[in-house]
Amino acid sequence: MVRANIKITLKAGVLDPQGKAIEHALKSLGFKGVNEVRQGKYIEVELAESDESLAREQVDRICRELLANAVIEKYAYEIVG
Amino acid sequence: MVRANIKITLKAGVLDPQGKAIEHALKSLGFKGVNEVRQGKYIEVELAESDESLAREQVDRICRELLANAVIEKYAYEIVG
Repeated sequence: MVRANIKITLKAGVLDPQGKAIEHALKSLGFKGVNEVRQGKYIEVELAESDESLAREQVDRICRELLANAVIEKYAYEIVG
Repeated sequence: MVRANIKITLKAGVLDPQGKAIEHALKSLGFKGVNEVRQGKYIEVELAESDESLAREQVDRICRELLANAVIEKYAYEIVG
């Protein structure tokens, strides 16, 4: 059994209104040193598979088929223990 | 300038309907080996601060004051660059 920790983020250049909202909120709270904020999704998937390369194959398919919208999002993940 | 990569996840025991929905969707798509899915948020914050320990202090305050709801969520982050 392994766990995949998946980050899904907007591609560079895609407008991120949620990130902008957080950025403005932080500035109004007095955090002056904040330059840019980008918001994404974080998803943990526990897989019965124990072979790492098969798990990677499965996670790639999961990301492409369900979790990430390839037009505007990219994904990255790590497989842990 | 450093970037903080922040993961915000639900504490263990807190119900996660979004994660459950993803889990069911994956099962209907034929991914049989999926055991559990938990959904969280992923936020990248670029800080003007270049000293790592001061940046950590700032990110802790940002998480506690704005990003994470300490009652049901926990956060973790890494400082890069």
